Amino acid sequence: MESEFIRWLRSRLAPHPNLRLGPGDDAAILRLGDRAECVVTVDLLSDGVDFDFAQAGAGRVGRKSLAVNLSDLAAMAARPLAAVISLALPRTGALTMAQGLYEGLLPLAERFHVAIAGGDTNTWGGQLVISVTLIGQVESGRPLLRSGAQPGDQILVTGSFGGSILGKHLDFEPRVAEALLLNEQYALHAGIDVSDGLSLDLSRMAAESSCGAVLETGAVPIAPAAEELANRLADGSTPLDHALADGEDFELILAVSPKVAREILADRLLDVPVTRIGEFVDEPGLWQVGADGARQPLVPRGYEH
Amino acid sequence: MESEFIRWLRSRLAPHPNLRLGPGDDAAILRLGDRAECVVTVDLLSDGVDFDFAQAGAGRVGRKSLAVNLSDLAAMAARPLAAVISLALPRTGALTMAQGLYEGLLPLAERFHVAIAGGDTNTWGGQLVISVTLIGQVESGRPLLRSGAQPGDQILVTGSFGGSILGKHLDFEPRVAEALLLNEQYALHAGIDVSDGLSLDLSRMAAESSCGAVLETGAVPIAPAAEELANRLADGSTPLDHALADGEDFELILAVSPKVAREILADRLLDVPVTRIGEFVDEPGLWQVGADGARQPLVPRGYEH
Repeated sequence: MESEFIRWLRSRLAPHPNLRLGPGDDAAILRLGDRAECVVTVDLLSDGVDFDFAQAGAGRVGRKSLAVNLSDLAAMAARPLAAVISLALPRTGALTMAQGLYEGLLPLAERFHVAIAGGDTNTWGGQLVISVTLIGQVESGRPLLRSGAQPGDQILVTGSFGGSILGKHLDFEPRVAEALLLNEQYALHAGIDVSDGLSLDLSRMAAESSCGAVLETGAVPIAPAAEELANRLADGSTPLDHALADGEDFELILAVSPKVAREILADRLLDVPVTRIGEFVDEPGLWQVGADGARQPLVPRGYEH
Repeated sequence: MESEFIRWLRSRLAPHPNLRLGPGDDAAILRLGDRAECVVTVDLLSDGVDFDFAQAGAGRVGRKSLAVNLSDLAAMAARPLAAVISLALPRTGALTMAQGLYEGLLPLAERFHVAIAGGDTNTWGGQLVISVTLIGQVESGRPLLRSGAQPGDQILVTGSFGGSILGKHLDFEPRVAEALLLNEQYALHAGIDVSDGLSLDLSRMAAESSCGAVLETGAVPIAPAAEELANRLADGSTPLDHALADGEDFELILAVSPKVAREILADRLLDVPVTRIGEFVDEPGLWQVGADGARQPLVPRGYEH
């Protein structure tokens, strides 16, 4: 199966300037431009956990496997360069499935100029597992870490939150261009992408920055899907609950000074909305303030792996 | 599970000079030294295909998952620098299993100075899948490709072949130091590591080099395990059959000029034996010559993924 698949893939891939040596040898050789430093991230998706293969189909699963990694590099303000992809495929229909995964993944790779550097394609007795490793670079030399938020910094987010299970978790747009633009134009202190839930990932960012975060719950941009999910479930959960706790929004949370926050909100350089939802504070932990202005502890909720 | 595991892993890892930023953020940042180029490879292992977890145990599986990648970098004459590791773990006993995998993997990483840059640790309803991506560099700027063999080049191999399923496939020594030393001291034309079988990988090397290869079957170094396996199976297969077709020897096949072959064999710089087993020729395909000196086609056999 693998040798036939590699022939197909080699015919499908155009030469890429980042690749001195592409798929087919024992390893690939990447050109990294000027900086002898690179950023690397890996995400593994499995059937029944990160997607329902029968429902989503190969193309959307392949797309998601690269998109989640692009979102991680966005959260570092890194430019993606090259990916390697490993697959554990069910034995029946493995070649068709592998091709379907790549047909979903390749257009996204092309759009973000990501070279497919190599992979490892296997069959086995289990369900589909797909692991993508993405390599990139911080061209500015100023990576966006989780740990740089300071008390007094404002919390900005891109997009809206909640209900991604209704579709966005497969079809979301990784905020790579947005992160690169903002990191180039403004002094960003810290950033994270929301993969496990807005409240959980915000609490992680605060903890890594040795400070706390106060969320103004009335300011959280709630996705229409969060409303729809709350309606469908009719289990007492509110759209805000979903916005705070649902995973896989793949939006950015940024920490910036009040001055920079005002500039970003006034300049409106991005196509996607940017919203201020609170601020970082000295007191550790996660807090919420509602309409009455009283500060209360907020229990971080989200997807725990 | 994952957050507890990451805490354990962070406490277990020493700071590493190759890492500007290690595990725990959205991505890791690697220092690459002088050359703005890197080599990358990935291998995915799954339970029931690449190991029998119940029989092998977590430590040997973890070790193998890194060792197979080290072997790929050896085949490029690249020095390993950093690894990222993704896991799909069965839900029951996931933390213990993850720690056991790393307890097997970390000593090998330390011995080869490989930084653990990050990973993705997941649980799911299936059996264990482990994918390791290894990044390295060719410090000499002269990577060892599969495609450089020329007619007249001699075929040299490290170690011996066959029967690795009896144990070597888990406990083999990746030939990193050997490849780096030979590539530094001699003009090597091409190289590959034997993962799928000596005859199959040799035929791939010949095909990538647009030439053929003649194997002197009497010269192939046969591992004691190949004899033992042939005895045990008692199915008519010979030790030589196992040496030619069994996968996972993880030895090197090298193509060098006759002059360099003589030097390597005379100088004996390696601790592991090096043996001449044939030569590359103009006629495409794989050939064998036996004791009678007659050249016959040899069907490449080995593990097809």
